[in-house]
Amino acid sequence: MTVKTKDRIVQASLELFNLHGERSVTTNHIAAHIKISPGNLYYHYRNKSDIIARIFDQYEAAVDELFTLPDNRAITLYDRALITERLLDLIWKYRFMHRDLVGMLANDAELKARYQTFATQGIASTEQVYIRMCESGFMDIPEDQLKPLALNIWILVTSWTTYLRTALGVTEDRQTREQLNQVIYQMFCLEMPYLTPYTKEETRAQMQAFHLNTD
Amino acid sequence: MTVKTKDRIVQASLELFNLHGERSVTTNHIAAHIKISPGNLYYHYRNKSDIIARIFDQYEAAVDELFTLPDNRAITLYDRALITERLLDLIWKYRFMHRDLVGMLANDAELKARYQTFATQGIASTEQVYIRMCESGFMDIPEDQLKPLALNIWILVTSWTTYLRTALGVTEDRQTREQLNQVIYQMFCLEMPYLTPYTKEETRAQMQAFHLNTD
Repeated sequence: MTVKTKDRIVQASLELFNLHGERSVTTNHIAAHIKISPGNLYYHYRNKSDIIARIFDQYEAAVDELFTLPDNRAITLYDRALITERLLDLIWKYRFMHRDLVGMLANDAELKARYQTFATQGIASTEQVYIRMCESGFMDIPEDQLKPLALNIWILVTSWTTYLRTALGVTEDRQTREQLNQVIYQMFCLEMPYLTPYTKEETRAQMQAFHLNTD
Repeated sequence: MTVKTKDRIVQASLELFNLHGERSVTTNHIAAHIKISPGNLYYHYRNKSDIIARIFDQYEAAVDELFTLPDNRAITLYDRALITERLLDLIWKYRFMHRDLVGMLANDAELKARYQTFATQGIASTEQVYIRMCESGFMDIPEDQLKPLALNIWILVTSWTTYLRTALGVTEDRQTREQLNQVIYQMFCLEMPYLTPYTKEETRAQMQAFHLNTD
C-alpha cells in the first residue's frame, strides 16, 4: 500500500521537527526530504502552520487516547502501567512539541487558542486519573491537593524537553529516548507520597522495568 | 544622583523585555525608550546579547543571594520565609527570563553555556536548602527523594511563566504579580508531604499571608 503524499508530508515534517526543531525546518526542507517539489507540497498544505495543525490533530487524538479509562469497572494497576507506557511513547513521538512551544505559538493565533483548550483539558484529565486511582485504593491524597498535583505533573511532563535543552544543553538531534523516559522517574517521585503502600512497591518495580535512573 | 547611561540601558531593557518579551524588543526600541540615539546605545553595548548578558549578571547575583544561608547556625523558619519572599521578588523582577528561554538561547552560544552552569548550580542549591531544612527538623524526606524534589521544584519555578503564557494565554503585558505568586502555592504543595507537622502549619499560614489561591 502506498502512503499518500499528503500523509507523507506530515510524517516527514514530524520526523524533521523532532530531529532539528520546528524553528529551523522550512517547507523546502520538508519537500526535499521526501523528494517532491515545493509546488507539490503547497498543493496539499498552504504553509508550515497548516502542517503543524495536522500534527497537532494527531497529537490531540493520542493524548485523548492516553487518558481514556475504562468506565465500566474500577481501574487496575495494569491500566496505570498502560498509561505510563503510552505516555512514554507520546513524549518520544512528539518530542518537538513542547521543546520550543513559545516560539511555535508566537506567530500562530489558531494553534495558540487550540493549545490553551488542549492544556486545560489535559490538566483536568490528569486530575481525573488521580480521582480514579483514589477510588481504586491506589492513592490517598487530601482532596485539596488533587488539583495542585495534577498541575505540577502537567508542568513537569510538558517542560521536560525544554529542561533537557536549556539546563543540560541536549540538542534536538541528540535527545535519546532514555533521557525522555527519565521524566517518568520524576513524575513517580511527585506521586509517591500519595500512593498507598502496595502501589508504592509496584511503582518502584515499574521504575526498574523502565530502567529509570534511581540514583 | 544621576544614573549612568550604561545602567539606564540595562534598566530600560529589563523593563521592556518584561513587558513585551525579549523577542520583540530591539536595540532601537530600547534607545527610543530612554531617548538616546542608537549610536549612543552602541557606544555602550555591542548588541542586544551584550545587554542580556549584563541582565543575566544581575540575575545570577540575585539568585546567588537568594540561596545564601547562614552557615554559623541552624536555619529557622524565618530564613525559609525570607527565601520565599526573595524568590517572589526575583520571579517578578526578571519574569521575561524563563518565558521564552529557548528562543533567547537559540542564537547566543555564550548565554547558552552560562545558563547550563547556572541551572546546575541552582538545582544543587535548592537541594542544599532542603538538606538544611532537614537538619533543622522542618523536613523529613527519604534521602533518595532529595534530588528529585529539588529538580521538580526547579522545573516548576522556571517553567511557570511559560505555563501562564502557553496554557492560560496570559500575554507578557498582562502578567500580574498575583499570577506569578501562585507558583509558590504549587511549590509548597510539592514540599508539603515532606514537611514536619509544625512546618506544615507554618506553611499553610504563609500561603494565607501571601494571599495564595488555596481553592
